Amino acid sequence: MNASRLVDLRAELARRDLQGFIVPRADEHLGEYVPSGAERLLWLTGFSGSAGLAVVLADRAAVFTDGRYVLQLAAQTDAALWERRHITEEPPPAWLAQHAPGGRIGYDPLLVSEEGLQRYADAGVIMVPVADNPIDAIWKDRPAAPLDPALPHRLEFAGRSSEQKREEVAAALRTAKQDAAVVTDPASIAWLLNIRGSDVPFTPFALGFAIVHADAGCELFMAPQKLPPATRDWLGNAVSVQDRAALPGALAGLAGKRVRVDAAGSPVWFAQQLRAAGAEVQGGMDPCMLPKACKNPVEQQGARDAHARDAVAVCRFLRWLETAAGHESELSAAAKLLELREQVAGFRGESFPAISGAGENGAVIHYRVTPESSRAIRPDETYLCDSGAQFTDGTTDVTRTVWTGPGAAPAEVRDRATRVMKGHIAIATLVFPVGVAGPHLDAFARAALWRVGLDYDHGTGHGVGSFLSVHEGPVSLSRAARPVPIAAGIILSNEPGYYLPGRYGVRLENLLLVQPAEFPEAVKPFLRFETLTLAPFDRRLIEPALMTGAEIAWLDAYHARVLAEVGPRLEASDQAWLAAACAPLK
Amino acid sequence: MNASRLVDLRAELARRDLQGFIVPRADEHLGEYVPSGAERLLWLTGFSGSAGLAVVLADRAAVFTDGRYVLQLAAQTDAALWERRHITEEPPPAWLAQHAPGGRIGYDPLLVSEEGLQRYADAGVIMVPVADNPIDAIWKDRPAAPLDPALPHRLEFAGRSSEQKREEVAAALRTAKQDAAVVTDPASIAWLLNIRGSDVPFTPFALGFAIVHADAGCELFMAPQKLPPATRDWLGNAVSVQDRAALPGALAGLAGKRVRVDAAGSPVWFAQQLRAAGAEVQGGMDPCMLPKACKNPVEQQGARDAHARDAVAVCRFLRWLETAAGHESELSAAAKLLELREQVAGFRGESFPAISGAGENGAVIHYRVTPESSRAIRPDETYLCDSGAQFTDGTTDVTRTVWTGPGAAPAEVRDRATRVMKGHIAIATLVFPVGVAGPHLDAFARAALWRVGLDYDHGTGHGVGSFLSVHEGPVSLSRAARPVPIAAGIILSNEPGYYLPGRYGVRLENLLLVQPAEFPEAVKPFLRFETLTLAPFDRRLIEPALMTGAEIAWLDAYHARVLAEVGPRLEASDQAWLAAACAPLK
Repeated sequence: MNASRLVDLRAELARRDLQGFIVPRADEHLGEYVPSGAERLLWLTGFSGSAGLAVVLADRAAVFTDGRYVLQLAAQTDAALWERRHITEEPPPAWLAQHAPGGRIGYDPLLVSEEGLQRYADAGVIMVPVADNPIDAIWKDRPAAPLDPALPHRLEFAGRSSEQKREEVAAALRTAKQDAAVVTDPASIAWLLNIRGSDVPFTPFALGFAIVHADAGCELFMAPQKLPPATRDWLGNAVSVQDRAALPGALAGLAGKRVRVDAAGSPVWFAQQLRAAGAEVQGGMDPCMLPKACKNPVEQQGARDAHARDAVAVCRFLRWLETAAGHESELSAAAKLLELREQVAGFRGESFPAISGAGENGAVIHYRVTPESSRAIRPDETYLCDSGAQFTDGTTDVTRTVWTGPGAAPAEVRDRATRVMKGHIAIATLVFPVGVAGPHLDAFARAALWRVGLDYDHGTGHGVGSFLSVHEGPVSLSRAARPVPIAAGIILSNEPGYYLPGRYGVRLENLLLVQPAEFPEAVKPFLRFETLTLAPFDRRLIEPALMTGAEIAWLDAYHARVLAEVGPRLEASDQAWLAAACAPLK
Repeated sequence: MNASRLVDLRAELARRDLQGFIVPRADEHLGEYVPSGAERLLWLTGFSGSAGLAVVLADRAAVFTDGRYVLQLAAQTDAALWERRHITEEPPPAWLAQHAPGGRIGYDPLLVSEEGLQRYADAGVIMVPVADNPIDAIWKDRPAAPLDPALPHRLEFAGRSSEQKREEVAAALRTAKQDAAVVTDPASIAWLLNIRGSDVPFTPFALGFAIVHADAGCELFMAPQKLPPATRDWLGNAVSVQDRAALPGALAGLAGKRVRVDAAGSPVWFAQQLRAAGAEVQGGMDPCMLPKACKNPVEQQGARDAHARDAVAVCRFLRWLETAAGHESELSAAAKLLELREQVAGFRGESFPAISGAGENGAVIHYRVTPESSRAIRPDETYLCDSGAQFTDGTTDVTRTVWTGPGAAPAEVRDRATRVMKGHIAIATLVFPVGVAGPHLDAFARAALWRVGLDYDHGTGHGVGSFLSVHEGPVSLSRAARPVPIAAGIILSNEPGYYLPGRYGVRLENLLLVQPAEFPEAVKPFLRFETLTLAPFDRRLIEPALMTGAEIAWLDAYHARVLAEVGPRLEASDQAWLAAACAPLK
């Protein structure tokens, strides 16, 4: 099937006099979760990972992804049709410069950022924007855009009114001497207007675009049928609503204005349209991104509450796992966890597809269990589960790795898992001054692994939204991230890991809330992390002899807190199990 | 005196229709140590720090420097004439944009890099290049340029021939499809041509410029009288020598060529001259910088040898210090250390002005002791000494902080010093994969201080040359540094500190040599640090209760190594002292 799609695409490219075409995973919001009609990469190649890009030339084609998906890419794509490449070790621009020198390479300007496009130009690739995506021309039964309703996100969860938020954003635009900003991230719009939706899986936003003006006015571009009367009322008069089709005209109406467009986060199409209309485009971060990331006190308390409730499902699941080996599977385990979460008040769905990986499947960093891939959970192996939930008051994301028993874990596995635990604790206990950014801290999570020549091929942590995207910017704990200073109120994941391909994987993840750290005599402000996630780490995978006294004390104190906060929410038999799971290490 | 200079300068600026002028510390090589005729900032303001900039407007003037020199700046400049500003907290471009909007601000294009100039343009400041520096017009007795001879740096110290080095640099230019590179850093020229000189204090190079061509040919621009016949022979026929005055013509001769100019490290004058001549200027790091930083095996062994010999002087000095309190001064201590170093084989001078600070003077991060500032070293206080030496086989840089006794150090001082020691050990023991850069590791040196709300206002470490500059790029252990990956052979300082203004300062510094770390099963290359510096840390300032077992083990092992390697080089009485100073902590 895929072979004929590739043949069709090549014919379409030939008709348009293009020597090649790039197919990103992105939709026109450059989002992580996209509606099914935007799954062009999956449709063309079979690869379902959340990050990737295909390049199609007349005589060869390649799919690129990062370290998280290398194994999945190999499993899902046809080696006869596709070369498989590591996107950072052999970037697509360099590959194109080598294999299609001088060729005209098409791109859809709605699916590529200006910065992304620049990387091709820097490599000397001749990039040609195409107005109609050639994939759409050959994808006959492409699903239509979703029309799910956008609904109010009430103040008891949002904490601040949209009016306040729009005034804050407008003030930032005025300070930057800008007349308006284009907002293309539906999560930013959801935050700014206090609305939520269900257009894509896992992230509760409604797809749309917005233009925010320096006078705090806002134009929302969203199919009117997605906005019921109650939502229209909730938005108020300062927010105008127009159909998506009105967007080019509205951008043209900004002629002569200074308009902020996020060169990394927005499709280049917006800057191209604005420049063609005679607007002055200024690069700059989506003005909602940082204020959205810094959760207000209501959102912070919501996060604590959501995590405490989610912990009940996670702890019950961990107990259930104790007897799962031998008669449950990766798939049935993921289903069990979902079933337990569905019993939690306020549960609104998973925040991403659960990763449920036993043994060697745990080494597939972003493994997605399917009926085809699922295997039994066996005795005496590792089982890794990375999952999360959306609640009206917060978003969760937690990973635990357990030893299925009944035997003891081998010394090597305990050594690796303990080094991951040490990295997790090193991050969790950091105190640092304002100004420090993710790239400056990432190494703390790795030092214990590095010491013996080991590492993991993914970032240490990402931002997490408030009943929004489980992966949000602008801060992440990664050497590759831009050094945006960490700020109070940001929620970050802390998820070091270790993966031995074909054998096993370990990842240990809690969410952290950035808090001011108070020191009476400090000469500048400091920050610390408050751990939000509450669930025991499997003590069978911990080797106390490898830990310092301070690390053991942290783990024991964390477990005591889990027992104190989650225990009272459990039934008696679950409580007894939790008490044992949370016993001190020594 | 300074008041009249400022008056004269303002008159000169008025004559040239300039509303302002910037006076950097730099010379036309943008170097740290500059000949006396280039000390324009010192001449104008009285500030002698190695980093700073003055801005002169008609009605106000300011001097900017960084955290290392804040106290010194206040002490050396006249508050009636000069506002004193922190250069990163209130950068000169922002200050100018605020205080001289729309004004024409002059700059000497030989004293500012292209990147530096861009920061003024980004702030909206109108910058006007001036051909003749206005300071030079009013500085009547400005010293002439030095004419010290450039001498061969023999292969037994350099390790590689200039021919090999020029071929390596030329190959890099060919790979980048560049015809030539301008080299403006005299340290790069010294490395490339295996020559050394004495034009400026502390750094043994000869001032000059070079153009390296993609065919490995090289044009050296240096006063011919600085090159004795033996040096001309040593340079060989592939290196042409012309006077500095021939430089503009030579740049004009590159019309139509692609020429690399370091936009951060070279004066913008070069790019301006090349563009005016019709050359294509390409930004890029000085092509000598990274190969110069990665010491070859001969230079590495030279560094070990130089450090072992230097250690004799440092250890004798530390013993001498034990009885110094009460009858010696900061100045006499610095003189004593120099006297001891002068007895070491191959000593060629200090690598920077020694910092000799007792008590509160130790809190002045780059304190320079003078007859006016020097004070007695008293009992029961800290004394900090940061010093280094040039040897033909290597450059040293070492800081120790001691407690003068006879009483015990207060608990607070021991707490701070121990946290600095923990930071030092955290860096020294790191193992990390290739790809990691200074900004990713700097925080390890600070974490123990951060934990209690403390920090220090300088980078953790800098590159060190081989009988060259004690501060060299491109790698440094600093959050502010560019993320250039750390590579084997690089020498870095490891110098965390803590400073309580008006009270005391602690800094503990060794030099580290980056080495491959061998792991049989590693899936990628790793690096580790070899400590070069050999001198005991004062155990009276260490609180073992604050240290982990691993930290204590590191310190005991380091001290055992110091005793084993330095002890045999000492006289018997010094040996006995060293044995006591190197005794295990517990």
